[in-house]
Amino acid sequence: MFSDEYFMRLALKEAEEAYHQGEIPVGCVVVSQNRIIARSHNLTETLNDVTAHAEMQAITSAAEFLGGKYLKNCTMFVTLEPCVMCCGALNWAQISRLVIGARDEQRGFISKNLSLHPRTEMSTGILEAECSEIVKQFFRERR
Amino acid sequence: MFSDEYFMRLALKEAEEAYHQGEIPVGCVVVSQNRIIARSHNLTETLNDVTAHAEMQAITSAAEFLGGKYLKNCTMFVTLEPCVMCCGALNWAQISRLVIGARDEQRGFISKNLSLHPRTEMSTGILEAECSEIVKQFFRERR
Repeated sequence: MFSDEYFMRLALKEAEEAYHQGEIPVGCVVVSQNRIIARSHNLTETLNDVTAHAEMQAITSAAEFLGGKYLKNCTMFVTLEPCVMCCGALNWAQISRLVIGARDEQRGFISKNLSLHPRTEMSTGILEAECSEIVKQFFRERR
Repeated sequence: MFSDEYFMRLALKEAEEAYHQGEIPVGCVVVSQNRIIARSHNLTETLNDVTAHAEMQAITSAAEFLGGKYLKNCTMFVTLEPCVMCCGALNWAQISRLVIGARDEQRGFISKNLSLHPRTEMSTGILEAECSEIVKQFFRERR
């Protein structure tokens, strides 16, 4: 039951929430021992704040939940590849695992030759088509 | 009067505040038309939050002050070279100018071959010795 697809589907629900609020649709959940300890979606427009990416909010609220700033034994499921800022934050958080839906060739950290913390395992391409399609649809409507 | 040294001295005061709170002493001010619109210091320990770097908080609060997420016509004075996370955030914010006190060869963005937004001008080495010394002293005491 608790597959990567299961949790990515919940992250995608968060992205849909963002979509309906006119935000670039990226969503995220943080899971520890198969429990969701944080969920969030992009809120940069609503909060007028470039730092309010889904991942940043999820890191802050997962740490709040755990009572410590390191996200050990935690997995983040995020619908879109994190940007440079979020990659840097994930590094500081030393998260155990990062699961990415769709790649973001332009803005994502991978093409910038940045790497995650040595303790962080990474998987990509989970529900890739759906995670990518919601972003494309968002920008199609705004053209 | 409103020289780079003048504002960096105020950023350094923020770093001293951090120092007295047991935080890695990094401080920051954001200036627009010679007015300080945000000031902050590192709060990662106090808030149990890896994202609570001085620069991140200053970006959020400057945007709040301006009522918009882009920090146009703003200069950030920060005592230590920003990390990857903060560099990413400054990029999103399209800040006009970044003034750095001391370099951070290990954790700073410059050695990672990252660059700031094309619209961002950068200066380094303002009150470098003092900005560097406070960090060194902090770690010397903890050894």
